[in-house]
Amino acid sequence: MHDLPDSIPALWSAQAHMPSVLGRQLVIDRGEGNYVFTADGRRLFDGTAGLWHANIGHGRPEMAEVAAAQIRRLETYHVFGRYVNDRALELAEKVASVAPIDDARIILNSGGSDSIDVALKLARRYWQLRGRPERTAILSRDLAYHGLHAYGTSVAGLDFNREGYGTDSLVPDTVRFDTYDIERVRETVERVGPHRIAAIIAEPIQGTGGVIPPTPGYLEGLQAIADEHDILLILDEVITGFGRTGEWFAAQRYGLRPHIVAMAKGISSGYSAVGGIIVAPELWRPFYEADAPIYRHGTTYSGHATAAALALENLAIIEREGLLGRVRELEAVLETELAGLAGDDRVAQVRHAGLLGGIELRPEVSAEQVTDRMVEQGWIARPLRGNVIQLSPPFTTTDAELRELVAAVPTAMDALRGAPVPAAAR
Amino acid sequence: MHDLPDSIPALWSAQAHMPSVLGRQLVIDRGEGNYVFTADGRRLFDGTAGLWHANIGHGRPEMAEVAAAQIRRLETYHVFGRYVNDRALELAEKVASVAPIDDARIILNSGGSDSIDVALKLARRYWQLRGRPERTAILSRDLAYHGLHAYGTSVAGLDFNREGYGTDSLVPDTVRFDTYDIERVRETVERVGPHRIAAIIAEPIQGTGGVIPPTPGYLEGLQAIADEHDILLILDEVITGFGRTGEWFAAQRYGLRPHIVAMAKGISSGYSAVGGIIVAPELWRPFYEADAPIYRHGTTYSGHATAAALALENLAIIEREGLLGRVRELEAVLETELAGLAGDDRVAQVRHAGLLGGIELRPEVSAEQVTDRMVEQGWIARPLRGNVIQLSPPFTTTDAELRELVAAVPTAMDALRGAPVPAAAR
Repeated sequence: MHDLPDSIPALWSAQAHMPSVLGRQLVIDRGEGNYVFTADGRRLFDGTAGLWHANIGHGRPEMAEVAAAQIRRLETYHVFGRYVNDRALELAEKVASVAPIDDARIILNSGGSDSIDVALKLARRYWQLRGRPERTAILSRDLAYHGLHAYGTSVAGLDFNREGYGTDSLVPDTVRFDTYDIERVRETVERVGPHRIAAIIAEPIQGTGGVIPPTPGYLEGLQAIADEHDILLILDEVITGFGRTGEWFAAQRYGLRPHIVAMAKGISSGYSAVGGIIVAPELWRPFYEADAPIYRHGTTYSGHATAAALALENLAIIEREGLLGRVRELEAVLETELAGLAGDDRVAQVRHAGLLGGIELRPEVSAEQVTDRMVEQGWIARPLRGNVIQLSPPFTTTDAELRELVAAVPTAMDALRGAPVPAAAR
Repeated sequence: MHDLPDSIPALWSAQAHMPSVLGRQLVIDRGEGNYVFTADGRRLFDGTAGLWHANIGHGRPEMAEVAAAQIRRLETYHVFGRYVNDRALELAEKVASVAPIDDARIILNSGGSDSIDVALKLARRYWQLRGRPERTAILSRDLAYHGLHAYGTSVAGLDFNREGYGTDSLVPDTVRFDTYDIERVRETVERVGPHRIAAIIAEPIQGTGGVIPPTPGYLEGLQAIADEHDILLILDEVITGFGRTGEWFAAQRYGLRPHIVAMAKGISSGYSAVGGIIVAPELWRPFYEADAPIYRHGTTYSGHATAAALALENLAIIEREGLLGRVRELEAVLETELAGLAGDDRVAQVRHAGLLGGIELRPEVSAEQVTDRMVEQGWIARPLRGNVIQLSPPFTTTDAELRELVAAVPTAMDALRGAPVPAAAR
């Protein structure tokens, strides 16, 4: 592993316990297809596609060409007021054409956390405008991850992300509901009072919470609750959007009709910071009428031209290379391989949906230690809450690579069994 | 101006009254130096540097080369936990080397709104960790703009950005204070109770509020209040950072010692979505001690490698071309030209600091109509709250261009005088 200089780097890393990270950082400085390389030359298979985003793989030359051509022509111009740029217009049209909402309008921004905050603000704004000021509550799932800006922090179902700020919820009037049992969700909705609820937000497949596919009928139940009580349904498709489940959106896989879809990651496969929300006519129309108020949103890099050009090329690659179909094929391989692991007595449960896999280990085995051992053997996987190992490789993964990735988990557990306990765990 | 197709575009623009924007959008599709071009071929001088960000000018070929080379090598890898990429490390070191805080740590993200939310969350988290749970209030200036994620929305001093969500402040416990008179600020601090205040946040020069330089002693007064009452001082240098005032940061120009500096825009001149916060040792040390908790922040594109490479090249260009010194020269030109306008009986006040100019018009003349007329004549300027025209061209502007830009204001007012009143205003 790469040795850091004696001086502490100026970069404060993300979600990191800095005292235990320093001195053992993995400095990535090259990527090619499904592999990345450390500064000291080690080759690692990217078994998580970074943070579930590098769907077309790394370092692709056609993306480099697009970026250079766009910057030479126009790096960006903003989309405030009367101004707009051609690439932002194009990307919005493209997203609308594959969206799970008909006649949608698209607000662009720079990432998933942005998308959550604007989605929840728009839901609140909508009800005020509609003359229903009491609809202010936002309900979210236990174990939910919705980014880390202030509203996303407030609706976090992973308590460690919401807590520590001196209040249960930075933006008040948020409530968590059961993540498995739709009847218990109904109870929560009744307890809060349906007429007080602005929106329900949900990841169709929970990611950071531990790769949790929906229990049968759960998502359909959320849809029914939203329909019945005139509650807005917001799907957080930051992970699932743009192909991760073999459809453009998980809403299409599960037959859902959301009012807002939050997107990011897969829209550009991480080549540029892009996100946004897809908005249903019910919500955008009140802001397009002649006497409508301005909806007061906007960030400098909304519709960034180079970011949009890279997103457009990424979506073109997904289509050109048939990657949605490829994800469906890989899902079948993943299912088979995970089923083979289910009998391992160190494994508590295996879960998958689309090209998203989660391996929950029994408490005796630490997912963090296993993934640390895996990376020594050349396989990047990621420990999630609940002692789960995340597997979510690029869509360009071969069948053989996927099989080897899954097999690397028991291999690492075997290696750990006889290994001395690391100093940090003693 | 470019005609839109009959169908309504899918893109929902930012801060736009859509019904009056549609049909008169200005579609920018090319940029070169200090000029941008519309899709129908009109050449416009970028008198605002976009949204105060395009400091090195548009479409620079050396930036295109850097982007392509970086993407070919590694478009990005995340900086969560043990992982990091070489470009993120480099950018953090570079920012720390010019920062107005010694021994700073840098959290990177994708823009100014991101920076505000993480700055305010960190301030709250810090006091909880320090055992001062009652320190939760955030105080901000009247007319402040601090982005539009949920926390930034909550501290907005421009009421139209904060209101309409069914509560005075999405995140409660925010208070606005006077933007001109430091004695009135002291009264507000006393009224709230200094022991309850987590942080004071301020733009050193207010931007969107109408280009408002600090009154004499005002910023020094904020510093004194922060020192006296152990309140954190957060400077929002999203506009002023990286040279806009002729120093790397306005904190250096005004001799301030902030605990956190929020940055974005000028760090990359808008070539990539980058932002971040610069954090003083007092705040980061508690999270670097052996028994420290994890600070639970992080976004997918924190430390994005290509975004960071573009920021590094932008900062290298600023140094190579001596643009900080050039801003000081241009400030002198701007001051002279604005002084020449001060006698115009349609002008209420002229203001400037660094290469930031504001021309406040008398109520009889509409800044919006004037800027619409200016753009027809080839000059982009921007109407701000308070009937103010924003002038903030790129650092690469020539003296002659700056003189012509300022002169375009009275020319447009002259043209308007005899013009028929537009239908929209009738």
